[in-house]
Amino acid sequence: MVTPIGKSAQTRQLLLDTAMELFAAKGFAGTTMRAIAAESGLSLGNAYYYFDSKDAIVHEFFRELVEKHRNVSWPLLVPGNNLETNLRIALESALETLAPFHEFGPAFIRTAFAGTHSDLSDVHRALEFGLWRQVVSVSSPLPPLAIRKDLPELLWLIQRGIFLFWAYDRSPGASRSRRLIKNVAPVIARLVVLSRMPVVRSILDDVLSLVRTAT
Amino acid sequence: MVTPIGKSAQTRQLLLDTAMELFAAKGFAGTTMRAIAAESGLSLGNAYYYFDSKDAIVHEFFRELVEKHRNVSWPLLVPGNNLETNLRIALESALETLAPFHEFGPAFIRTAFAGTHSDLSDVHRALEFGLWRQVVSVSSPLPPLAIRKDLPELLWLIQRGIFLFWAYDRSPGASRSRRLIKNVAPVIARLVVLSRMPVVRSILDDVLSLVRTAT
Repeated sequence: MVTPIGKSAQTRQLLLDTAMELFAAKGFAGTTMRAIAAESGLSLGNAYYYFDSKDAIVHEFFRELVEKHRNVSWPLLVPGNNLETNLRIALESALETLAPFHEFGPAFIRTAFAGTHSDLSDVHRALEFGLWRQVVSVSSPLPPLAIRKDLPELLWLIQRGIFLFWAYDRSPGASRSRRLIKNVAPVIARLVVLSRMPVVRSILDDVLSLVRTAT
Repeated sequence: MVTPIGKSAQTRQLLLDTAMELFAAKGFAGTTMRAIAAESGLSLGNAYYYFDSKDAIVHEFFRELVEKHRNVSWPLLVPGNNLETNLRIALESALETLAPFHEFGPAFIRTAFAGTHSDLSDVHRALEFGLWRQVVSVSSPLPPLAIRKDLPELLWLIQRGIFLFWAYDRSPGASRSRRLIKNVAPVIARLVVLSRMPVVRSILDDVLSLVRTAT
């Protein structure tokens, strides 16, 4: 990863901010790269130098939201919370962070799921994994040793599932997604306790190995 | 549900066929309702009478594919197959049916997941459930009684997950989706055997009740 610095980084940020304003005003489909360039005071060629498509802009924007979600939820994971509470905090704050950008749901999905092997996806994933590791390591009681190491990956998977659900959730205020989170948290907490049992652990191993060979 | 008959049904089918040709030639984004109407020899207003958007056309087309998948896979579920085999047959034939229309993946997702409560979705779901009930009821040995009744719903859920994965799978020939199916089938077969154990059954109950409150 090369981090853009100085003027180049400023121009990049200007394009990003302008794009988000135009997306908000005219919708994703109604905004062209040409309009983004013009509104930023850049030539079209110059704009394409920074982002080769609207999707690339959304990708970058989504990465910023992932970072914001991490920064918002991290301080809320305070000592004394149990796993169910921390899980709800992390999932609900993800929804809060994404809420103003519901219209981008399908575009986010494209960017989050399509390029599984790209550099940027690795950065996303590392950021997201970091948060789920924190959720696990500050929960009390600590999850059973049998699952502690793999739990962040399983939680990340749950997050992706809920994210997908949210992206296509048309209920007012994404109320169905909120209900889903409320219902998922205790189920996962129960599953974690049951993971001490070899049969449950073997099922979780199957699921993990499916995920690992698929992604 | 009102079934269109006679001339009206013919016009509807004409629009559908024309749209699919144009989608294939110019892509989904590159095809307008105006072009679909013109190419069908209809006024734009008349075309909108039958389908109020491109998404509505895709919805109808997707329904036809669901039906086709059912018709293709049903005769392959022959007596003597075990559950794992039948599962692979049903999932792989879904992939075969959808393969020529991979570009529509995200549009299919919109239509399959967005309007969960619409009439058409109920029809989809009934069609799909019918197939999964057949998968279960012709497998030998029959799945444990403890899960036999709920298994079609769980398999349908697995199918949706794989369908989502496929929609965003950019590997050549959707090879990652194919590998996923190959890996999923034995895992599910194992889970079904384990469902005799109360702890496994209780986990499956949790999952089912999550799904039922979410959809």
